Amino acid sequence: MDISRSPRTFRVIGRRTPKVDALDKVTGRAQFGADVALPRMLVGKVLRSPHAHARIKHIDTSRAAALPGVKAVITGNDLPKITLGASGPGGVATTREYYVSREILARDKVLFHGHVVAAVAALSSEIAEAAVDLIEVEYEVLPHVTDPVAAMQPDAVVLHDDLYTQTGTGKATTPSNIAEHLQMGRGYVGRGLAQAEVVIERTFRTQTVHQGYLEPDSEAAWVRADGSVIVWANTQTTFTQRQDLAIVLGIPLSKIRVVPTEVGGAFGGKESVRVSALCVALSRRTGFPVRMTFSRAEVLQATGPGSATVSTIKVGARHDGTITAIQARLVYNGGAFPGAPLRSAIRRVFSHYRTPNLQIDAYDVVTNTPHVAAYRAPGATPTNFALESVMDEVGEVLGMDPIAFRLKNASRPGDPMPDGVQLPSVSLTDLLQRVQAHPCWTTPLAGPHQGRGIALGLWTMPGGTTSCHINLNADGSVTLVLGAVDLSATRTSLAMVAAEALELDLEDVRVVVGDTDMVAYSGASAGDKITYVTSKAILKASEDLLQRLKTRVAAALEAAPHDIVYERKRFWVQGSPDRVMMLADIAQRTVRGEDPVMGYGSNSETFSTVAIAPNAAVHVADVEVDCDTGAVTLLQYTTFQDVGLCVNPDQVEGQMQGGATQGIGWALSEGYAFDDQGVLQNANLLDYRMPTSLDVPRIATNVVEEPSGDHPYGIRAVGQVPIVPPAAAIANAIYRAVGVRPRELPMTPERLHRALKRTGETTPESEALFNVIRQCYGHRLTSDELEEVRKGVAGVSQAAAALRAVRLNNSDEPFSLGIPYRQEG
Amino acid sequence: MDISRSPRTFRVIGRRTPKVDALDKVTGRAQFGADVALPRMLVGKVLRSPHAHARIKHIDTSRAAALPGVKAVITGNDLPKITLGASGPGGVATTREYYVSREILARDKVLFHGHVVAAVAALSSEIAEAAVDLIEVEYEVLPHVTDPVAAMQPDAVVLHDDLYTQTGTGKATTPSNIAEHLQMGRGYVGRGLAQAEVVIERTFRTQTVHQGYLEPDSEAAWVRADGSVIVWANTQTTFTQRQDLAIVLGIPLSKIRVVPTEVGGAFGGKESVRVSALCVALSRRTGFPVRMTFSRAEVLQATGPGSATVSTIKVGARHDGTITAIQARLVYNGGAFPGAPLRSAIRRVFSHYRTPNLQIDAYDVVTNTPHVAAYRAPGATPTNFALESVMDEVGEVLGMDPIAFRLKNASRPGDPMPDGVQLPSVSLTDLLQRVQAHPCWTTPLAGPHQGRGIALGLWTMPGGTTSCHINLNADGSVTLVLGAVDLSATRTSLAMVAAEALELDLEDVRVVVGDTDMVAYSGASAGDKITYVTSKAILKASEDLLQRLKTRVAAALEAAPHDIVYERKRFWVQGSPDRVMMLADIAQRTVRGEDPVMGYGSNSETFSTVAIAPNAAVHVADVEVDCDTGAVTLLQYTTFQDVGLCVNPDQVEGQMQGGATQGIGWALSEGYAFDDQGVLQNANLLDYRMPTSLDVPRIATNVVEEPSGDHPYGIRAVGQVPIVPPAAAIANAIYRAVGVRPRELPMTPERLHRALKRTGETTPESEALFNVIRQCYGHRLTSDELEEVRKGVAGVSQAAAALRAVRLNNSDEPFSLGIPYRQEG
Repeated sequence: MDISRSPRTFRVIGRRTPKVDALDKVTGRAQFGADVALPRMLVGKVLRSPHAHARIKHIDTSRAAALPGVKAVITGNDLPKITLGASGPGGVATTREYYVSREILARDKVLFHGHVVAAVAALSSEIAEAAVDLIEVEYEVLPHVTDPVAAMQPDAVVLHDDLYTQTGTGKATTPSNIAEHLQMGRGYVGRGLAQAEVVIERTFRTQTVHQGYLEPDSEAAWVRADGSVIVWANTQTTFTQRQDLAIVLGIPLSKIRVVPTEVGGAFGGKESVRVSALCVALSRRTGFPVRMTFSRAEVLQATGPGSATVSTIKVGARHDGTITAIQARLVYNGGAFPGAPLRSAIRRVFSHYRTPNLQIDAYDVVTNTPHVAAYRAPGATPTNFALESVMDEVGEVLGMDPIAFRLKNASRPGDPMPDGVQLPSVSLTDLLQRVQAHPCWTTPLAGPHQGRGIALGLWTMPGGTTSCHINLNADGSVTLVLGAVDLSATRTSLAMVAAEALELDLEDVRVVVGDTDMVAYSGASAGDKITYVTSKAILKASEDLLQRLKTRVAAALEAAPHDIVYERKRFWVQGSPDRVMMLADIAQRTVRGEDPVMGYGSNSETFSTVAIAPNAAVHVADVEVDCDTGAVTLLQYTTFQDVGLCVNPDQVEGQMQGGATQGIGWALSEGYAFDDQGVLQNANLLDYRMPTSLDVPRIATNVVEEPSGDHPYGIRAVGQVPIVPPAAAIANAIYRAVGVRPRELPMTPERLHRALKRTGETTPESEALFNVIRQCYGHRLTSDELEEVRKGVAGVSQAAAALRAVRLNNSDEPFSLGIPYRQEG
Repeated sequence: MDISRSPRTFRVIGRRTPKVDALDKVTGRAQFGADVALPRMLVGKVLRSPHAHARIKHIDTSRAAALPGVKAVITGNDLPKITLGASGPGGVATTREYYVSREILARDKVLFHGHVVAAVAALSSEIAEAAVDLIEVEYEVLPHVTDPVAAMQPDAVVLHDDLYTQTGTGKATTPSNIAEHLQMGRGYVGRGLAQAEVVIERTFRTQTVHQGYLEPDSEAAWVRADGSVIVWANTQTTFTQRQDLAIVLGIPLSKIRVVPTEVGGAFGGKESVRVSALCVALSRRTGFPVRMTFSRAEVLQATGPGSATVSTIKVGARHDGTITAIQARLVYNGGAFPGAPLRSAIRRVFSHYRTPNLQIDAYDVVTNTPHVAAYRAPGATPTNFALESVMDEVGEVLGMDPIAFRLKNASRPGDPMPDGVQLPSVSLTDLLQRVQAHPCWTTPLAGPHQGRGIALGLWTMPGGTTSCHINLNADGSVTLVLGAVDLSATRTSLAMVAAEALELDLEDVRVVVGDTDMVAYSGASAGDKITYVTSKAILKASEDLLQRLKTRVAAALEAAPHDIVYERKRFWVQGSPDRVMMLADIAQRTVRGEDPVMGYGSNSETFSTVAIAPNAAVHVADVEVDCDTGAVTLLQYTTFQDVGLCVNPDQVEGQMQGGATQGIGWALSEGYAFDDQGVLQNANLLDYRMPTSLDVPRIATNVVEEPSGDHPYGIRAVGQVPIVPPAAAIANAIYRAVGVRPRELPMTPERLHRALKRTGETTPESEALFNVIRQCYGHRLTSDELEEVRKGVAGVSQAAAALRAVRLNNSDEPFSLGIPYRQEG
């Protein structure tokens, strides 16, 4: 592409640039899903299953439907019955739509607590809620299973009688809860382990976690009189949503328009059709627009969280530090339907280290829990937690420095990834060396019970398709129309790319996202590919626009198009610098009788047989553990990342900090807690504890720019990898602080306390204190509160009373007794 | 263009096809301006001038601004002061924006009754209205003038002290109300008249008329935190609106997005920025979205109606029927600002007939009345009323049959138009011959006071630019994205063109209109050019899409692109019919890793030096005149029109019938009535009388297809010309019925009664009856009511009482005593 250039010449790229949506968002003007308002719009609400697993024997909607103000009540029978591989008006149903259809609205069986059983559209929320209460469902409660390992047992209750384990060689003949058994590897692990002088095998558990996007799922739909549909979706992927809606609802693709709203966080959780399908079904029944907004509880209970996992990792190494074999058994909880991110995780995590012998057995297991979705670097965080923990332990047993051990084994360009693809240029060793020399690693820790941990992360992009077009406006500005939904203001960096490619000022580029009617097909904004994949499409569209303009200029200046030179809003004839035409003049002519000019560009990247522009990260965590309570304080957190070309430093650093913070939540506090009936116990943001600004120190960002050779500008992806190392880095730091290696996420005070107890780090006083803390688990204790509790810890009950009094008197927050997390099995 | 073909092979074009928006519109789902709803949206209302002409000495908005719930009050001083030719943030101000700015919001002076003086944004309509009432304005009332001929007099009050008459040779040196004196012609009219054996000169008057669109002006705007603007506009032209807003409000063009809503009728009246500019100014002040909807009274009072005119036409002819000279003096009332459609009218109307000597003097005159806008075939209806009336009289004096006389003189292809451009292929004579042989002309009339009239009409398109793009969807359907705003479901016929060009079924084409962010520049949907100009862009975009697809197929089938043949959703290699690829397969591939495909097309037509695809019409009207009351009943109305290629017969006939009906309104009942203070007296739809279905017979349509040589498919425009002949045809029919030639529009019972009185056609009883009718003018009388009045006409007062009783007892309509039209001067 002739518009590529050396990084040194960038004018716009590399400048700290405010996000295009920042002002709108902080002033409340951004339009999210819940802001969609239409004349005569109805409110949708759903009835959810109170059981984790049950057969629906009968649904009586008559009382609900008779309530004044109720316009429609639908159940699973009101959606077309999807048969795998069968063609309907919307196209051929694949596994995806087969399960999406059942997830949206239960049919015959409910498969998890919170599974939607019926939906109502009414004139108001209050009426809709009252109607939901009037729906009578007769269930036959079935045995349930929420633990993926339990679900794999031969005697486990089977969720789907048509689910047969898929393996590399075929399908099982009897149904089970194991949707897939994926095997990957190279060499002979047995031989590799036999060559090892140190072998360590450990098992790790992680819980289901939620992406924790701030904006609850809220969408709207309107079915028009001719059967065509308009959907306002807070989605990461308008076109996939269109496709899913077409098949799931039996509507021709071209009758559906999906309009993206602003997305208030997604992180993988908003790739699937969920709310909009119900809105369409209700609108089709009523003829009125229908909007549905999930409550926070519903979001946590029944959207798509990240997988819980149980991983066993075995690593063998020689005394000299050479790894001889890695073996892994990875069990991913897919939730109620298949779809855990096995390949996604394996490909990246098991590319960190060289080993001649690798064997991975990964399982996608269905259980009576919410169906999982992607979550930032899908599947990588828990598996990396397991691998990097074992690596840390192996290095320690070998008596090697954590960095030295990793440096010895870190993958280099050309090394094989688990799927056999060669790893292209990657900065793992470079980053490790930088860390080695950095004060965050060299400065000693000061206090007792403090520790420092390190972990690697790696991400490579999934494939993707995107398109865009660029219109020249009458004033010489351009409008860049993107097909890729904006997440975290990706419009900003993409406008910068267009300004760079067209040699405009950033103010000359207006950037917007088109709906499915306005732009050509563009895949999901997911998996870290927006900037990388879309910027290439933008370069093509810019080139197309410039070529068309050069042709126009050539005709006006009576020259050949290839003799026209363009620079900074000015065209001239090569060798005749006085034969000039300004971009603004051509622009003005397009509204004065000459044809308008549009440039179009698309880009499809298929990464199945190659790996492109991988991005690596190393995180260093300093922690202090309170041995009385098990609470972990992050003293310092430092990230290093190769970002390729840093398009907008503000955004790149924001991704690094945001991703690390989510990883910290995964590490220390977040996790679904199901009771023994499979009912989610912490479906609110007090009890499902995401990190707040009080919990996380300022995350230091060290940006390394090693331009990718795969992109004309050297761009790499930056958004996924920051979530991968934190859990492992913090676990390794905790070990250095108190000698306990946590093997279960989240590393809550409760779990750490229990572990410390086993190591004799607790006293009777700390036990009493812990019990107070445990009862108040839902709260973040300030240090003052903690001190107060500490002082009054003569007896547990007094302390608890004192603490409650503190909370009740001093805080605006509602008081709630925290729910303890599930006991270890 | 290789996708053009012989008309015989059309598969989709020519089929009667339901309008794409029909179901949505009849079921209330279509989204008009007033349906725009946004969170925290404010309601805008305006204060209007009670004077026709006054200086604004002081405006005190403090009481209004202090009213709780009022968020902003603005006056003219809150808009940037536009200086002609000066550059601002939005661009360089031309005359257009200079006057638009003053029309939107008065500055220093009010120029007509209803001129906006201030605008308010508040939490509700009620508050906004109360606030408007609290604004105190101190006026210095000035003398005013509403009649254009009076306004031309040297002693007339001058509206604009910076308006100097523009002529072909320069500008006047003293300001006056004559904005322009346009002269056009050929030969020597004096010599031509001297050669004539019959010379007839007549003067005609027509009133200001309104387009009568059903949807009142209603728009909304939201200024975002970063100063960018989104406007929802019920406009004919999103891009011109964007340009106007940029300059008038001083906002860079690229910061403005104009989103078209459905347009509930426009007919030329929605080309100018009006409501949206106020919404933007109010939203800029408040940060909240603002919607403003005019009342029906405001629409009539202060939007852009069609010009009132005073025309003097002199025609000379020889005994053999040959016209030797035509002279015309045309005075157009521009309203408060320049802009009457002089050229538009002259070019078409004075192309009807051959004459070696032609002299036209036309004047654009400003008066203290609402600024005029375009109205369907702008300016042609009143001027054609004048010309065709005189022609009818000349023919009669010569003793020639009306058709024979017109046939002798009707223009032929190659004849000069008034601006010297040659008339291309045109069907005037062909249509006249068809009428000559048609039962509507040959069947004798049966009753007394019945008459048959005929008139010609001709239209040629103005220039225009439009663009579109076509996306291939995953299911093999396409989405056609138009830049031209849809009027009267033009999407339908344009989708048919795309289906034809791409050899798809109509169901495969989704058609949408893009906003200014999504599509390349497209000019106004106005002047009859949408289908003609846009269809050419569609053919180019289709060709672009097919070429790209052929390249794709060629690569897949290992052939050269030029060897790929396409037919009906199927590609194959020339000569190898088994090397085939289906369109649907390529489409599916674009969502499976191959690049998406978009076709782009634009078209700019400049008609200033040529005339393209003219379309001709002949109308025949049969009337019966009630000599007691002066009421005219249309017995039969028959239209003949050359439509070029009839894309969608339903739509073409709809245009012919709709245009004729508007022409009938212009002829018989519509007209603005100002009192002697310049205050509009009939600003409601009872007193401003548009024809209802009771007033108009079924309008017969005779569609003639003479494909235009200028268009690949032979398309001509069809929408403007039907409004041109009705007034003249009806006037000529009235003359045949009762021997009176009406020379003023509308030909109300009152005017006709007065004319009949002069000819002795009235009796004392009919006088009394007439007076009753006159008092009840606002109502359409049913024949029963008329009979009742007729019976009770012993005395006027009793009859009036009886009539009122009938109305009050038998009708759901509110009773209102009609307002008589202005007396003739």
